[in-house]
Amino acid sequence: MIFSSTLLENAVNEFAKLPGIGKKTALRLVLHLLKKNTDDVKDFSEAILKMREEINFCTRCYNISDKQLCNICADRARRQQMICVVESIRDVIAIESTQQYNGLYHILGGVISPLDGIGPDQLQIDSLIKRVDEEKVEELIFALSPNIQGDTTIFYISKKLKAKAIRITTIARGIAFGGELEYADEMTLARSISNRMPVENYVGNKF
Amino acid sequence: MIFSSTLLENAVNEFAKLPGIGKKTALRLVLHLLKKNTDDVKDFSEAILKMREEINFCTRCYNISDKQLCNICADRARRQQMICVVESIRDVIAIESTQQYNGLYHILGGVISPLDGIGPDQLQIDSLIKRVDEEKVEELIFALSPNIQGDTTIFYISKKLKAKAIRITTIARGIAFGGELEYADEMTLARSISNRMPVENYVGNKF
Repeated sequence: MIFSSTLLENAVNEFAKLPGIGKKTALRLVLHLLKKNTDDVKDFSEAILKMREEINFCTRCYNISDKQLCNICADRARRQQMICVVESIRDVIAIESTQQYNGLYHILGGVISPLDGIGPDQLQIDSLIKRVDEEKVEELIFALSPNIQGDTTIFYISKKLKAKAIRITTIARGIAFGGELEYADEMTLARSISNRMPVENYVGNKF
Repeated sequence: MIFSSTLLENAVNEFAKLPGIGKKTALRLVLHLLKKNTDDVKDFSEAILKMREEINFCTRCYNISDKQLCNICADRARRQQMICVVESIRDVIAIESTQQYNGLYHILGGVISPLDGIGPDQLQIDSLIKRVDEEKVEELIFALSPNIQGDTTIFYISKKLKAKAIRITTIARGIAFGGELEYADEMTLARSISNRMPVENYVGNKF
């Protein structure tokens, strides 16, 4: 693409760096912003920079948070002895949208995947074990994407917790094997939380 | 969607205001930016705000420009007596990408469309007529989207210029009727400029 304006070109190039956005879409978005008044564009621009500069991670569950403790961990009305273990903050948002869960979360930051060079040390697994001990956790619900890496992670963590007197469950497999958790519809996801099952009964369990 | 962070929520909402971007895509883009380092996000944020605040319109052809005169109008190597009339800056970018045209442009800002309340006065038609007089224009090439509104606009402008001794052409109809100019592939668009035809010979011409 050949541009008559460097300012326009820079803005288009910045948008085109985002995943799934090509040059034509980037141009469309930029021309849309160009039609908006300056205050609206300022709001857009500032919301993004502010988010990047000021956002924190909850020191307890590693969720994205404005403060030291995220809204969920700070909410004393939620069940404090139940932790749902997820890969990423997107899964927290998906599960929260079902309004079927009122315990806490623990965000691993991924799953064990030796092929991608991700081992237990790169994930928030030690901090999870520590929480189980310190917070007198009664139940751990795994809500990981149903694939080999997710299963490996469940196996690894539940082996580490074998000696503890806690219930370890995984959300029901309503989601197709190989599917991604965040794209499940809310109903399927809600049911998979209600119908969670003990890891040892879990059909297809190879460990 | 329920968010644990207001900063995150604001950023997602701002992205979701853009055309064609829903909440899930917005979240994906925001989480992508969150993984980038602060300087990259600053570049993104600043490029967009700077573009909105500092961009001008060329006083001659109404193209987007950093200065009073756009790069194309300021380029003395281009043919000064040939003006390509287009709807929007996106069409200029599309035609420039073909590298088949080295005259000037005139951006109308739309086409005559009474149903949308767009009449000749809302468009840069008077300024085009003025340019034809003042710049000793020899040829006017219409490169408007091939639909009723585009045809009406060609008709209106060429009627106004009937008395002048200039050649008025339209790009060849290589593009399907009802199609959008900006989505044409470069080869079709390039040929449609090379094979431009006088308006009076144009098949399908009802006026």
